Amino acid sequence: MEKRIEISILLDFYGQLLTEKQKNIMILYYNEDLSLAEISEITNTSRQAIHDINKRCYKILINYEEKLNLMGKNTDICKIKDNVLCKLEKIKEYMSNSANFYLIDEIKNDITENI
Amino acid sequence: MEKRIEISILLDFYGQLLTEKQKNIMILYYNEDLSLAEISEITNTSRQAIHDINKRCYKILINYEEKLNLMGKNTDICKIKDNVLCKLEKIKEYMSNSANFYLIDEIKNDITENI
Repeated sequence: MEKRIEISILLDFYGQLLTEKQKNIMILYYNEDLSLAEISEITNTSRQAIHDINKRCYKILINYEEKLNLMGKNTDICKIKDNVLCKLEKIKEYMSNSANFYLIDEIKNDITENI
Repeated sequence: MEKRIEISILLDFYGQLLTEKQKNIMILYYNEDLSLAEISEITNTSRQAIHDINKRCYKILINYEEKLNLMGKNTDICKIKDNVLCKLEKIKEYMSNSANFYLIDEIKNDITENI
């Protein structure tokens, strides 16, 4: 996985464990693709300090992932969900009345949106 | 929720973020129900120190939960899963051939065991 994407995902899972300033800088750099110079101006922080924060926070996020594995587990769960969604679609073929397809669609929605 | 049960669940989610010693003492006290005296003997640590570790670690675990909400999200997901399992059982009634029930059972297994 490309590092920028990896960090963006890690921020989704563990961003709350960083300080507000750390999180803000990481989001501006990795999610919003701003340059060090732009972030420096916005946050009134030197480019070197931003560079250091990015580097340190990456290590912090990786350390949390090594311990909690939320990103890894989520990747596994997404594969299983895709598989379940395929099976649900297949079940429609074996149902006697399409009026009951709504049940399948409700489950698909629960799996994609709520689980 | 009873505090002991709450801490036991929090340990499942965030125990890896404690030190080995902290985690060990918390597990002995909250999961294995040992007394302070017993843990003191096993870990060669004073009863007061164990009491302090339990108190401090509880705050640490609660702090992680406030930030990541893994226990809260899991509770919500469990309710949705139960609901999905009921709907899957209902779908069986609408299937024309019981030979295809295996698909429902596979999905139920995926949801209970793997997601």
